[in-house]
Amino acid sequence: MTIDELTRHAGEWLSGRGPQSDIVVSSRIRLARNISGFPFLSRATESQRKEILRLICSTIDNTAIGPKSSFFDIEETPDLDREILVERHLISRQHAGAQGSRGVAVSDEETVAVMINEEDHLRIQSLRSGLQLQAAWEELRLLDDALERQVDYAYHSRFGYLTACPTNVGTGIRVSAMLHLPAIKLSEQLQKVFRAAKDMQVAVRGLFGEGTDAQGDFYQISNQTTLGKSEEEIIREFETVVIPGIVEYEKRARDLLVNERTSLLDDKVWRAVGLLENARAVSTEETLNLLSHLRMGINLGRLSNIDIRTVNELFLQMQPAHLQKMSGEELTSEQRGVIRADCIRKKFSNNN
Amino acid sequence: MTIDELTRHAGEWLSGRGPQSDIVVSSRIRLARNISGFPFLSRATESQRKEILRLICSTIDNTAIGPKSSFFDIEETPDLDREILVERHLISRQHAGAQGSRGVAVSDEETVAVMINEEDHLRIQSLRSGLQLQAAWEELRLLDDALERQVDYAYHSRFGYLTACPTNVGTGIRVSAMLHLPAIKLSEQLQKVFRAAKDMQVAVRGLFGEGTDAQGDFYQISNQTTLGKSEEEIIREFETVVIPGIVEYEKRARDLLVNERTSLLDDKVWRAVGLLENARAVSTEETLNLLSHLRMGINLGRLSNIDIRTVNELFLQMQPAHLQKMSGEELTSEQRGVIRADCIRKKFSNNN
Repeated sequence: MTIDELTRHAGEWLSGRGPQSDIVVSSRIRLARNISGFPFLSRATESQRKEILRLICSTIDNTAIGPKSSFFDIEETPDLDREILVERHLISRQHAGAQGSRGVAVSDEETVAVMINEEDHLRIQSLRSGLQLQAAWEELRLLDDALERQVDYAYHSRFGYLTACPTNVGTGIRVSAMLHLPAIKLSEQLQKVFRAAKDMQVAVRGLFGEGTDAQGDFYQISNQTTLGKSEEEIIREFETVVIPGIVEYEKRARDLLVNERTSLLDDKVWRAVGLLENARAVSTEETLNLLSHLRMGINLGRLSNIDIRTVNELFLQMQPAHLQKMSGEELTSEQRGVIRADCIRKKFSNNN
Repeated sequence: MTIDELTRHAGEWLSGRGPQSDIVVSSRIRLARNISGFPFLSRATESQRKEILRLICSTIDNTAIGPKSSFFDIEETPDLDREILVERHLISRQHAGAQGSRGVAVSDEETVAVMINEEDHLRIQSLRSGLQLQAAWEELRLLDDALERQVDYAYHSRFGYLTACPTNVGTGIRVSAMLHLPAIKLSEQLQKVFRAAKDMQVAVRGLFGEGTDAQGDFYQISNQTTLGKSEEEIIREFETVVIPGIVEYEKRARDLLVNERTSLLDDKVWRAVGLLENARAVSTEETLNLLSHLRMGINLGRLSNIDIRTVNELFLQMQPAHLQKMSGEELTSEQRGVIRADCIRKKFSNNN
């Protein structure tokens, strides 16, 4: 699959089909792994990076992460296409902007992505719509086991898997979920929820992970522990305690809006409709915020006639790189604003 | 006419019919007069105030400022009704909030209003849609002459008409126009225009005159000179030099928007449409700003199907006192926001 083909549809994680997907947009697990016999990347020569890339690529080919899986050589990929991969959460911003041999293998439907030569030799992720951490883990574990049968992972009998950054040592696992929390935001309770999250030792980050801002009321919640617990324990705790706790806060805030602050709720929802259907220029940030209120309106039954998948896909398609890819040319920020507004208006007039 | 009857329609000055009314919403002239033999109001006793009020009322009755003219005793008028008169520009905020005997006589169509016992014994105003200073002056001069035949004005052979504040001594005239300047505002040229206005010795004020903010891109421009020139000279200079100068700035700014910044212009106009048609709660300030962009859109041919009179009337009817009068009850600011949004949505669905 080429990047062009990729951009035509959203991955499975934006289908809005998974359990509790009114609040839990997606679930993600990633494993950090390094190949024994090679230095960590901060100390690897370019020829060693090439060797790692070649080795892992051939291993993945043998393992087959999916019949229609694709490999993208990031060094050879143009800037705009790299940004497409970032916007689709298939590679990190760091991976896009780094130097040297590196790549990513992506499965059909984009449920699995393997970054090669990011911070570690291997970053294997599984990404699913809704709260599906068990399913993500099953898929990831099979792939990880298959890889481990062919390459020697750097492993220490006492510490577990060795990783470039000590915070990942042990299981090398990071479990996260992307939550849509517009009602908590509107009720001005974010700080309270973030303090509670901190007490549960989870991190709250923005739409694109570490160091990024929350946009469109999306928050990435992730575990901080990789050591001293098994993968299964970490996932179980995250799926049965941490995420349900925050989801419960959001549900209560939504109930309160519906029952006691109906005018405020409907005002936010309908203003979003009015602006999306009428604006002639709109920034990415404003678009995400408007779509967020629209998504809330649909999920709370304040709006009908708008398909949730349409809205979910717009979150992706209206981002700068996707927009330029669709237009077939590089655009200034001002040009993007106008084209973005045009696309949205067309989408809604088709949809209604 | 009662206040209730008054609120049902807008006065002539909001008809949008006068010359150049795409930019010049209305023209206003007022004369300050005092009755000889009575002290200025700051030194008058309550019985003297009563005497002045009685005297002027009987004189106005004789003079007949219009067959359907009305008199409102402000002391006896409830707060909400006083606010109605302020919102209609028939009395000043100071007159509404003052103490003691005072009133206002209003002609049919609200083209003439005579405030009694405001800062001076008499404040006679003529208010017209568009740029109609000559017509306003004709009407005002006839009334002033008719009054002067029946009462003795305080007049000094060297200084002219004597007034409570020295800035009004001489002719006692103030000439002003309410301009709608959304394009100058959007082009961020307001400061430049205000500096030019200052050089021409005119004052720029907000929607309700002295000490008020500009709302909805409406600016009241008024002359500062009352001494050393005749009324006719002051009016002629204002009508042929000052106002055309500022109107020209606004026209150029509008041309620039239409020809070179079409996206910005249409974005502002259509966002206003989207929000007015969809919001579920909206403040007075936001409403005036949205209506301002709508008015600009209609005047620049970016929108059809919306009648300019509807928009002009909404500027008046969506203000707090008018809204409460229509609803038949006093409302909190939050309740007003919801009812205001409902009214606007109904208006537009009827209009389309």
